[in-house]
Amino acid sequence: MSLAWWNGRTIPGEEVRIDPQDAGFLFGDGLFETLRVDEGTAWDIPAHLDRLLAGLSRLHIEIPEDAAALEAAAREVAAAAPAAIARLRITVTRGHGDAPTRLIATAPYEPPGEEAYRQGVPVRFLPQYPVHSGGALAGLKSLCYQANRLALRNAEAHGAWEAILVNESARLVEGSRSNLAVVLDGSVLTPRRQDGCLPGTVRRRLLERGLMQEWQLTPEDLAAAGEVLLMNSLVGVLPVSEINGKAVPLGATASYLRQVLGGPWSLKGG
Amino acid sequence: MSLAWWNGRTIPGEEVRIDPQDAGFLFGDGLFETLRVDEGTAWDIPAHLDRLLAGLSRLHIEIPEDAAALEAAAREVAAAAPAAIARLRITVTRGHGDAPTRLIATAPYEPPGEEAYRQGVPVRFLPQYPVHSGGALAGLKSLCYQANRLALRNAEAHGAWEAILVNESARLVEGSRSNLAVVLDGSVLTPRRQDGCLPGTVRRRLLERGLMQEWQLTPEDLAAAGEVLLMNSLVGVLPVSEINGKAVPLGATASYLRQVLGGPWSLKGG
Repeated sequence: MSLAWWNGRTIPGEEVRIDPQDAGFLFGDGLFETLRVDEGTAWDIPAHLDRLLAGLSRLHIEIPEDAAALEAAAREVAAAAPAAIARLRITVTRGHGDAPTRLIATAPYEPPGEEAYRQGVPVRFLPQYPVHSGGALAGLKSLCYQANRLALRNAEAHGAWEAILVNESARLVEGSRSNLAVVLDGSVLTPRRQDGCLPGTVRRRLLERGLMQEWQLTPEDLAAAGEVLLMNSLVGVLPVSEINGKAVPLGATASYLRQVLGGPWSLKGG
Repeated sequence: MSLAWWNGRTIPGEEVRIDPQDAGFLFGDGLFETLRVDEGTAWDIPAHLDRLLAGLSRLHIEIPEDAAALEAAAREVAAAAPAAIARLRITVTRGHGDAPTRLIATAPYEPPGEEAYRQGVPVRFLPQYPVHSGGALAGLKSLCYQANRLALRNAEAHGAWEAILVNESARLVEGSRSNLAVVLDGSVLTPRRQDGCLPGTVRRRLLERGLMQEWQLTPEDLAAAGEVLLMNSLVGVLPVSEINGKAVPLGATASYLRQVLGGPWSLKGG
């Protein structure tokens, strides 16, 4: 039986139910984080809580818990995850009245297979789902994720694993559920914050360690790249095998970065 | 006791609870409509269902009910509304698995007072919450409404009734919860669909009757307008009294348009 932590209490996961007057359900007025859980341990909790608490502050959503309390709750829920590999989601909404909703819950997660890590995954370049880099929600992992989900559905309908998105100025931004990087002249380059991407936790670690740089990138850079990479907290770093059916060169960069990251991702695909 | 219609069944309103795995809660992946209820009668149901069903088709969300079934459900829920004036909300999400969520529920609603209709309401011009006219959700009444809610909170913190929004090209678009019109040289002009506004039901009726025209409008037009109007299905047509503290001329247009619209709105403020 999975556990959930809900507004300060730990209960069986299947007992959680949301008030239809919750601002998260009415208006998408909230934020979320997704973490990977391996054998009951959630990875990178502090980086996710950093981002979450910064976002809540920007939105003026006040919750009674501090980072330590949320971390303890996340560890407790992760330890009771129903599968060896699981996805842990932290959701905070403006709630109903003056009571924000806080929810931490897990679901089973099946990561991409070893094949995907070795040979890469196909993606679709979908400029018809542009990110607005100047929008009021830019950089927030908002519950308002419908456009990303539509892009992902479109990509999946074409057999692709991810949709690659641009912004209103046709600059590369990110995937619908991952950050993007390209290898150009031996450098690993990722779209800049100001171009509208979400500041992902794996992206942050690679930037902090000097293994990747922010760069303003165009669709031409994507087509010319020596390697194309996707990254998020669930998969680590995945190579891209083709874009809209056109093959992309495969290299050793994704594998190298996973080894450097360590944790559960270093075990995948060598 | 209020009633709600939930996935084909009519139940007491307070029994509705949302699955935390609902795509509406997880990702804002759904649509909604808000209708005014007066003495148990909901107004303009067909226009709202038109927009809702067109949006669901665009999103490839399939529901078992047709317009007639939804209208019957809305009438039943409206008839049991807990207050003489109420707000009826129709929400449809992609749900969980292959089961979309359909919910029709009411809440008490207090319309602006006669004073507001006679003297107008203050608004804030807030270009820092730009609408993306080229976004994948443009024109949809999506559950992804967080940016609008933030703009409204900002406006309300300044004592205003509404936030006036522009698009990425600094064209006027709409209010955070209403359509916008300006009176210029005796013509009633409202921002164009392609500039990013939501196609509101009151806006539609005024356009269809030739009482208002679509026009590309700038913030300068707002400043120069002889009258400024807000419209939605809850308030009908409301005049604006001031923008960021600067007085706006008051005229008879809002009152005239309410008389033409008829229904509950014609009773307000003469």
